[in-house]
Amino acid sequence: MTAYRAPLTDMHFLLTEVFKANAVFAAMPGTAEVSADLVSAILDEAGKISEHLLSPINQSGDQQACQWNEGFVTTPTGFKDAYKAYAEGGWAGLTGHVDFGGQGMPKLLSAQIEEMFFGANSSFALYAILNTGATLTISEHASAELKERYLPKMYEGEWSGTMCLTEPHAGTDLGMIRTKALENGDGSYNLTGTKIFITAGEHDLTANIIHLVLAKLPDAPAGPKGISLFLVPKNKVGADGNLTGETNNVKCGSIEHKMGIKGSATCVMNFDGAQGWLVGKLNNGLANMFTMMNYERLSMGLQGNGLAESSYQIASEYAKERIQGRSPSGPVQPDSAADPIIVHPDVRRMLLTMRANIMAGRALSMYAALQLDVSRFHPDADVREKADKLVALLIPVQKAYCSDRGFDVCVIGQQVLGGHGYVAEWGLEQNVRDSRIAQIYEGANGIQALDLMGRKTVRSNGELLSVLLQEFDEFIAAAQSSAAMQKYLPHLGASKELIADVTRKVIARAEVNPEEIGAASYAYMELLGLTLYCFMWQRMLLAAFEKLESGQGDAAHLNGLVKTADFFFARMLLHGKALAEEIEAGSETMMAMTAEQF
Amino acid sequence: MTAYRAPLTDMHFLLTEVFKANAVFAAMPGTAEVSADLVSAILDEAGKISEHLLSPINQSGDQQACQWNEGFVTTPTGFKDAYKAYAEGGWAGLTGHVDFGGQGMPKLLSAQIEEMFFGANSSFALYAILNTGATLTISEHASAELKERYLPKMYEGEWSGTMCLTEPHAGTDLGMIRTKALENGDGSYNLTGTKIFITAGEHDLTANIIHLVLAKLPDAPAGPKGISLFLVPKNKVGADGNLTGETNNVKCGSIEHKMGIKGSATCVMNFDGAQGWLVGKLNNGLANMFTMMNYERLSMGLQGNGLAESSYQIASEYAKERIQGRSPSGPVQPDSAADPIIVHPDVRRMLLTMRANIMAGRALSMYAALQLDVSRFHPDADVREKADKLVALLIPVQKAYCSDRGFDVCVIGQQVLGGHGYVAEWGLEQNVRDSRIAQIYEGANGIQALDLMGRKTVRSNGELLSVLLQEFDEFIAAAQSSAAMQKYLPHLGASKELIADVTRKVIARAEVNPEEIGAASYAYMELLGLTLYCFMWQRMLLAAFEKLESGQGDAAHLNGLVKTADFFFARMLLHGKALAEEIEAGSETMMAMTAEQF
Repeated sequence: MTAYRAPLTDMHFLLTEVFKANAVFAAMPGTAEVSADLVSAILDEAGKISEHLLSPINQSGDQQACQWNEGFVTTPTGFKDAYKAYAEGGWAGLTGHVDFGGQGMPKLLSAQIEEMFFGANSSFALYAILNTGATLTISEHASAELKERYLPKMYEGEWSGTMCLTEPHAGTDLGMIRTKALENGDGSYNLTGTKIFITAGEHDLTANIIHLVLAKLPDAPAGPKGISLFLVPKNKVGADGNLTGETNNVKCGSIEHKMGIKGSATCVMNFDGAQGWLVGKLNNGLANMFTMMNYERLSMGLQGNGLAESSYQIASEYAKERIQGRSPSGPVQPDSAADPIIVHPDVRRMLLTMRANIMAGRALSMYAALQLDVSRFHPDADVREKADKLVALLIPVQKAYCSDRGFDVCVIGQQVLGGHGYVAEWGLEQNVRDSRIAQIYEGANGIQALDLMGRKTVRSNGELLSVLLQEFDEFIAAAQSSAAMQKYLPHLGASKELIADVTRKVIARAEVNPEEIGAASYAYMELLGLTLYCFMWQRMLLAAFEKLESGQGDAAHLNGLVKTADFFFARMLLHGKALAEEIEAGSETMMAMTAEQF
Repeated sequence: MTAYRAPLTDMHFLLTEVFKANAVFAAMPGTAEVSADLVSAILDEAGKISEHLLSPINQSGDQQACQWNEGFVTTPTGFKDAYKAYAEGGWAGLTGHVDFGGQGMPKLLSAQIEEMFFGANSSFALYAILNTGATLTISEHASAELKERYLPKMYEGEWSGTMCLTEPHAGTDLGMIRTKALENGDGSYNLTGTKIFITAGEHDLTANIIHLVLAKLPDAPAGPKGISLFLVPKNKVGADGNLTGETNNVKCGSIEHKMGIKGSATCVMNFDGAQGWLVGKLNNGLANMFTMMNYERLSMGLQGNGLAESSYQIASEYAKERIQGRSPSGPVQPDSAADPIIVHPDVRRMLLTMRANIMAGRALSMYAALQLDVSRFHPDADVREKADKLVALLIPVQKAYCSDRGFDVCVIGQQVLGGHGYVAEWGLEQNVRDSRIAQIYEGANGIQALDLMGRKTVRSNGELLSVLLQEFDEFIAAAQSSAAMQKYLPHLGASKELIADVTRKVIARAEVNPEEIGAASYAYMELLGLTLYCFMWQRMLLAAFEKLESGQGDAAHLNGLVKTADFFFARMLLHGKALAEEIEAGSETMMAMTAEQF
């Protein structure tokens, strides 16, 4: 097995050259102190943790898996020590609010760190990500008292957090949840119900686990508008923010046996009159969760990218070393029994497809993370509003498209190794299994596509897309002065026309027939994803050409990016037209079957 | 978990209505006795075995996996009894040569049975398939003495067979194998070497295991032309065809820990001066294996179809039962808390994509199996030659495209169930893991595509494709009289023009640059696969319309097929144009990167 290597060269190129992170951070009061040196130091340190702390316990974690015993969960060997080191390094509070001990770092930076953690060890990364999501929700919506009581220890990594949404009969349709909350009269509530698929619901990594739980009061309105959000600690916490020694009535009933992420505990959580505290307003639980959702969904796309990068590293190394057969144009290593398989065009097709998706996915994730930062830190309300719109549009695409392509890339990587890709030894089959979940959790990708097509596009009458397409126009205008970009820019122009045209047609048709939204949604998400990958490759090209023309930078790396872009534009982007045609085919053939005929 | 149900209605429709199996069998002396009643009885019985014998030990077999201990392999609980029942039912000799106790059944029939076995329990099916492949090779190429000594017990299922090709450093490039064979002077040879990835190399199901092993004599020509094929029994066999009580020097060194097919033993086999007998001529080993290869490759496509069918059954049932959210066009079950998810267009997109691929893949597999039968049994040499050409063209596409789509369908099925698809309980994640191998073994799909594009297309100057396209023309001519077919036939005509055009271009370009073959191969395989699925849907439609117009048959089933075809033609076939464009983009952007830049 090849160990994970942090892709720092690619990340620095994107942060510095493509997204000009230094200028962006300097322009916003909340991030003004995030200097180039600091970014570099943090990224390097995160790279070391990924390589030396998380990657070594990735395969063993998969083999051992979490073990459940009488309500308690033991994580695989090494996870506890690694989490301790993670906590001591200050990573748990990296993006946390500075008033409660967090470091207030921007998402544009922490997204890269998450990608590395997911790439090195997705099971481990989930404990970290869930805690970050929980602290964000508390920080944004909880009372000052709850924040003071819970955030410091969660930022220190001494306690961790969860999100308890799903119930056996209620996943996508959270309006149907049955977990009940009764007022105790002392400001707290009594929660009773069963939650399933709770990541990190129970484990042995931290001294306490803080559950954020969706539940309904007995007299709450029916459906999604009657859902409230509660904070339920595993072990009770006093006013001083320390454990009282009393446990709460919440137990892990069992853990799931899953395809992958086996080192991550996926728990059935039983709340049996557990004491909890309201977070935010009554019946506003879903809205409160949505703050966190955009960040969590971004993470799932990052998981796809991270594991894709890991698979690419193993597959490209294997392709350069494995000798088998001869180059079609004559021996490349005439003195050895065969040539390395990287001489074969079809092996290069696989590797280039992988690399083109990874770099574009990473860039798209940074682009979305940047919008999250701008919407949070920028002093100008108009700028924040525009960023908010881009976040709303980009997150479902980034979540679904990056996790879909991430899984595909992991599958392709496995194929490069042939039979060796199917056995556990090389780690590629684990990446396939571990990446598969990113397409499912935090809202399955079909749900993301529906959110994009319905709420974000049809219901906004295409306004959010217009904001994005203005960004395209601004880029095209700025890139006109680059001679090297001339042969590429028409691709972006054509992609823009295609998505604009398709969007108009779907909006018009949805007015007549609401089924058209769901009929178009998945192919639309894929088309917008591909269009965004096109936009990202254009931005990477412009930055690479600028750097190359300046005579600075690593020319081999930059030229490699240009050649990967050439492959993307010659062979990958063209599939967008078929997606557009699929969308235009409409809902008729999808709705013709009766349920019984399936 | 939902138990596997044999898809007999679909299979009978294809066999009887689409491929007119009864007339085909009646017209060939070797299959004249295979009556419609016999076919029906055998299929029904195979369905029962799949449902009641193999499906119940599928999930437990995955969980237990094969266990290795001191050179011996224990299969999961129930496999031994099931294999005994399989053997006693006469299934091991179903397609075997009648002179040695086989039943001489055609592949068109046995392919359906294999699909069911793979769908119900792929790990189990592999023991059966490997034996069938080994007996076929012995039957076609071994001496009369070897046939008499080995075939009867292999047909009875008392002994089983393997294929020992791959070595640690030699997979695709078998010319590099190092296993040595030395003459003993008594007509036997002494074999020494290590083989890896040997399916069913060691197990506890049968009293003996007969290995077919590729090896080289010390003075053999270098490369593939110096490879010979040997029969090496695990336990030695006397002239009377009974065990002598003496063991041979072949041991299982270990078994692989794999992503899936965990109930199938994948063995490292060490031959340490093992006694073997030559099969066929010296240095003709690879050619001798190719007889078997076409059958084995067909089986891998069938594995994809079988597991896809299993996943479809579970996913479609779930989609009809799981209630969550509301239909976009108003409640369908207003009295329940939500509607079944099958009301959603995007869930239907998933299920229709699954069903469209399964039926077309099953039809394509039957079409290829039919050509194998015609090339073997038909009395007219010209007809046999034409069938041989179709076999050569169809098998790599059927192997690669059906296993690729089979895997995709299993992944989609998992997605229909959301989080429930990721946990072991429902069986869908096992299907994904089990189906993944079909894209890899028996020649990875990239190798199939290269065989199709290079040897079968460019080197035949498109002759094999012409034979196929004549079949298209004959079908179009015959279908002209059907009014219902008029709106569909243009799709087949356009698909035919597209593949013919692309083929001409690739052949022309390959003359100038040999890299163009590998650059085009994968997309070409996918385009021809899609074109063949189009052809298969046209044939299914014509048969369905004939049946509907006659007022016979199950109208709901037939109408369901027509609606699935409508979906295929509206939304799936159109992706062929992008594949053609990808092919036309050529090799330039694939070969531009240096190896170091990857």
